[in-house]
Amino acid sequence: MHARFTHTRRVRFSDTDVAGIVHFANFYRFMEEAEHEWFRSLGMKIMDQGPEKTFGWPRVRASCAFESPAFYDDLIEIDLGVVRVGARSLTLSFRFRRGEQLLATGELKTVYCRCGPGGKFESADIPDDQRAKLEGSPRASG
Amino acid sequence: MHARFTHTRRVRFSDTDVAGIVHFANFYRFMEEAEHEWFRSLGMKIMDQGPEKTFGWPRVRASCAFESPAFYDDLIEIDLGVVRVGARSLTLSFRFRRGEQLLATGELKTVYCRCGPGGKFESADIPDDQRAKLEGSPRASG
Amino acid sequence: MHARFTHTRRVRFSDTDVAGIVHFANFYRFMEEAEHEWFRSLGMKIMDQGPEKTFGWPRVRASCAFESPAFYDDLIEIDLGVVRVGARSLTLSFRFRRGEQLLATGELKTVYCRCGPGGKFESADIPDDQRAKLEGSPRASG
Amino acid sequence: MHARFTHTRRVRFSDTDVAGIVHFANFYRFMEEAEHEWFRSLGMKIMDQGPEKTFGWPRVRASCAFESPAFYDDLIEIDLGVVRVGARSLTLSFRFRRGEQLLATGELKTVYCRCGPGGKFESADIPDDQRAKLEGSPRASG
Repeated sequence: MHARFTHTRRVRFSDTDVAGIVHFANFYRFMEEAEHEWFRSLGMKIMDQGPEKTFGWPRVRASCAFESPAFYDDLIEIDLGVVRVGARSLTLSFRFRRGEQLLATGELKTVYCRCGPGGKFESADIPDDQRAKLEGSPRASG
Repeated sequence: MHARFTHTRRVRFSDTDVAGIVHFANFYRFMEEAEHEWFRSLGMKIMDQGPEKTFGWPRVRASCAFESPAFYDDLIEIDLGVVRVGARSLTLSFRFRRGEQLLATGELKTVYCRCGPGGKFESADIPDDQRAKLEGSPRASG
Repeated sequence: MHARFTHTRRVRFSDTDVAGIVHFANFYRFMEEAEHEWFRSLGMKIMDQGPEKTFGWPRVRASCAFESPAFYDDLIEIDLGVVRVGARSLTLSFRFRRGEQLLATGELKTVYCRCGPGGKFESADIPDDQRAKLEGSPRASG
Repeated sequence: MHARFTHTRRVRFSDTDVAGIVHFANFYRFMEEAEHEWFRSLGMKIMDQGPEKTFGWPRVRASCAFESPAFYDDLIEIDLGVVRVGARSLTLSFRFRRGEQLLATGELKTVYCRCGPGGKFESADIPDDQRAKLEGSPRASG
């Protein structure tokens, strides 16, 4: 990735575990925070509650490779890049850094869905105006 | 409390923090787990989704006094007692133990509510059949 | 409280639950975040790792009264005030607001401790320089 | 996978989010719980604190593919299989089910490490007795 959106996050005490480092499951919460701040920066909402329908972006796949631990009170930077905008899906990549040191890399694939009652999700085409915003965003290049 | 409901819970790695102990906020999640298992034992549901309305028990007040830390892999026992069944509210007390050792005591006050869209909660009288079940439960006596 | 330290916090997706609101246990994590940012503002550390000993502030008591729910994406403000600086303890109060609307109030009592291996905590007098900083802070007045 | 270890887990209220389903990051905590219960079943410990050294299994890579949402109060079953026991690493696979319905599949690669102070991890050969136990376990077959 050469151009990207960056979200800065302070590591909190409750993000850590008895091994003295950030619990690995929290890297996925951090990806989500970066994703939501990026949506906000585009003027988009992760949950779009219209008069009749709610749309959202449930996760299809998530992965993370851990290079070096993050610690309590670290100020970490999360770089977000767009891997692919599909007809109904969005794939994002993430790099976690503490300054120049790489901590982890991750990927998140989500699908645009109509959300019905009782947790029913039905995939739908990403509306054109939203697609344009997502495609105008920095691409991941490696 | 002499008679009570007891819920047993294994402490998980993700419940701990860098201080090497269970993060204090998780004691409130443990109280809730004990509460829900107690509701289940009474044949009751914490979220009652009827055809037209949903009822729930949002929290009004919660407190906890911490006596001794809990550690990863501990098997802790959570004793639940009924402090008071009001017209619309329920107050529960909790004791956290590892064997005979007291770890913490807590209290939780909740109110029976009709849950509307957008997080609107309106208090309501506890239905008689549910009140009977709650009142038939062990009382906290100390 | 008239004078106080204020910490601003965005509510994250993972802070919410199926009731559509911030899970009540997370208010305690938010109190802690405000407390740690306040410590930082005083040039203090919540975990003080010296060459031979580590000092920390384990919790003795925590309580919260919930007035109105907080929702995903809310920007909440957490006002922190000092209730009491004891010889070995510190009691803080918290007010959670969304703009002018009160969401919750809380209190946290912690004790200054020497932290030994295996989660052994031994209370100790708060060092004078730290006491001076804590006492110079805004008082809670109601 | 034909033969495997299975861990059963009740979905808790605090595992869910405002979308009405289990937050995706919690599937990684569930994998870890299954892994630790499996270690326990083998008479092994995930954190081995010897007189001089502590050994652990920090994560190198984790991934999850989400097929169908899990809901509050679901009783989910997590099947664990061994993908590979390397000289210093262990790769596990997971299947999440609610009865016969597949919810998600995941994979976790961890490395056996000597854990030094300050979060320093140094990889080490898996001791023979532990390797024998891990290799005697059910293999993932697809």
